[in-house]
Amino acid sequence: MGRLVRFGVSLESDLLSRFDRLIRERSYTCRSEALRDLIRQELVQKQWSEGSEIAGAVTLIYDHHRRELVNTLMDIQHNFGSIIISSSHIHLDHNNCLEIIAVKGSPEDAQRLTDSLKSVKGVKHGVLSMSSTGKGL
Amino acid sequence: MGRLVRFGVSLESDLLSRFDRLIRERSYTCRSEALRDLIRQELVQKQWSEGSEIAGAVTLIYDHHRRELVNTLMDIQHNFGSIIISSSHIHLDHNNCLEIIAVKGSPEDAQRLTDSLKSVKGVKHGVLSMSSTGKGL
Amino acid sequence: MGRLVRFGVSLESDLLSRFDRLIRERSYTCRSEALRDLIRQELVQKQWSEGSEIAGAVTLIYDHHRRELVNTLMDIQHNFGSIIISSSHIHLDHNNCLEIIAVKGSPEDAQRLTDSLKSVKGVKHGVLSMSSTGKGL
Amino acid sequence: MGRLVRFGVSLESDLLSRFDRLIRERSYTCRSEALRDLIRQELVQKQWSEGSEIAGAVTLIYDHHRRELVNTLMDIQHNFGSIIISSSHIHLDHNNCLEIIAVKGSPEDAQRLTDSLKSVKGVKHGVLSMSSTGKGL
Repeated sequence: MGRLVRFGVSLESDLLSRFDRLIRERSYTCRSEALRDLIRQELVQKQWSEGSEIAGAVTLIYDHHRRELVNTLMDIQHNFGSIIISSSHIHLDHNNCLEIIAVKGSPEDAQRLTDSLKSVKGVKHGVLSMSSTGKGL
Repeated sequence: MGRLVRFGVSLESDLLSRFDRLIRERSYTCRSEALRDLIRQELVQKQWSEGSEIAGAVTLIYDHHRRELVNTLMDIQHNFGSIIISSSHIHLDHNNCLEIIAVKGSPEDAQRLTDSLKSVKGVKHGVLSMSSTGKGL
Repeated sequence: MGRLVRFGVSLESDLLSRFDRLIRERSYTCRSEALRDLIRQELVQKQWSEGSEIAGAVTLIYDHHRRELVNTLMDIQHNFGSIIISSSHIHLDHNNCLEIIAVKGSPEDAQRLTDSLKSVKGVKHGVLSMSSTGKGL
Repeated sequence: MGRLVRFGVSLESDLLSRFDRLIRERSYTCRSEALRDLIRQELVQKQWSEGSEIAGAVTLIYDHHRRELVNTLMDIQHNFGSIIISSSHIHLDHNNCLEIIAVKGSPEDAQRLTDSLKSVKGVKHGVLSMSSTGKGL
C-alpha cells in the first residue's frame, strides 16, 4: 500500500461539479477515493492488455441435466489446475447451475480456460471478469 | 431447454471458412453449438439492457488490513441481502483478498451493490460480470 | 469550460508511481490532464446510460456491389435525418466501403439507427462509438 | 464475398423463438443475415486482438478555443499519416468540435494515435471504434 502522497489537481469548475455529483451518487466519501478508483481501473485494464499476472472470475451458467457435462467441466478445470484457485457452485433452479471459478495467472490462460468451458455442450453462458491480484494498486 | 429445431443457414464460403477456424481454436465440436453461444451472448446483453432478471458475479479486491473495511463490506451486503446468493473469499497474499459475490436480481440493483462496495476505502477494484439466470437460454 | 478550481488529492505512493508511468506512456504532459480525461470518460458513460443528449459515430463496412444496398442505406439515413449531422464515405478497396456517420441525439435513436443499418444485407459490420456533445465536460 | 454455402443448424425451440424476436426488433429480414452479423462481429474482435490489419474511426470532441490545439492535433495526425485515410470536422456548437478520423492499419498504431490525440489539453473525449477492412468477411 505504501505511504500517502498529496498533490494538487486543477479542474474546470463545471467538470468538477459534475464529478462531485457522480461521486455522491456512487456513495464515495471523498474525491481522492473516487480518483484512486478511476486510476486503478485504468491500471487493471493495462495489466490485462500487457499480459501481467492477473486475477479474475469465470462465471458459467449450465444445465446440469446434460449427460457428461459435469465430468467434462471437471476435466477441463483439472487441465488448468495451475491457474484455478477455487470454485463455487450455486443451484439457480431445477435446471440451471451457476458456477464461479476464481483464477490467478496470465490473461491468455484465463481466456483459454473460459473458451474451453464455454464450448462444452450444455454450458449456456460463460464470461470472464477482469480483476487484479491487487499488487501495487 | 425444449426440443431441438433444425433450419438451414446460408453463408459466404470465405466467411464460413474463417468461422470454422475460429470454432476450432475455441474447441467447439460443431457449428450449431458455436452459433448457439453467439445467440445466447446477444440475448444475455439484451436481458441486461432491458432490466430483466439476471444473474452475475461481483469480484472485489481489497486490503483486509484497513480498519473497519470488512465490517463495512458486510453491512453493505446485508442491505442488499435480497439479491445476494452467496459469497466466497480467497486470500491472495498477505494483504490482498479476492471476494466473489454471486447475485440474482435486477441489473440496476446489481450495479448499485457493485458501486457501493467499490466506494469503500480499501477496496482496490470491483467489477460486475454480466451473466444470466439461464431461463429460456 | 469555466474557470479552473484547484484541490488536493492523496494517493498511495506505489499507485502514484504506476499512474505516472501510464501517463508518460500515453503522452500526457501533466497529472491534471490525465485525471480530467478519466473523469470525462466516466461522465460520458453516464450520459449514455442515462439517455442524455450525446454525440457519436456509426462506422459501417459494406460491399457496394450488392444491388439496392446504397439506396437502402440512404433511405434509412433519411428516416433518421433529425439525428444525423453528416456522413463521409471511403473506398477501402474494389469491394469494400467504409462509411462514417456523425450523429447527435438520444442514445436510443443512435442505437436504433445503427441496428437498422447493420441489418441490411451487404453491410458486413456496423459499430456505434459513444462520444459526447462536449457540453459541461 | 464468394459463393453461398448452405448448412443445417439445430437450436432449442425456446432459444430460437427468443432469437426470432430479437432479429425482428433489429429489423433483420432473415435468420441467415442475423447469424452472419454475429459471426462477423466475433471475427472483427479476433482481428483486433490478433493485430491483423483493421479499419476504424477515432472520434474526438474538443474545444477549438484552446490556443495551439488545432495545430497540435494536425501535427500528431501527420506523424501517423500512414494509417490515416481522411478526417471530417463538425462544429457542434460555439465551443465544441467533433472530429472523426478514419484509420486503416494495425490495432496498435490506431490505439497509439488515439492515446496521443486524447492527451492533448483541450481534447475532452476521444474514442477508437473497432471495425474492419471487410476482407474475408
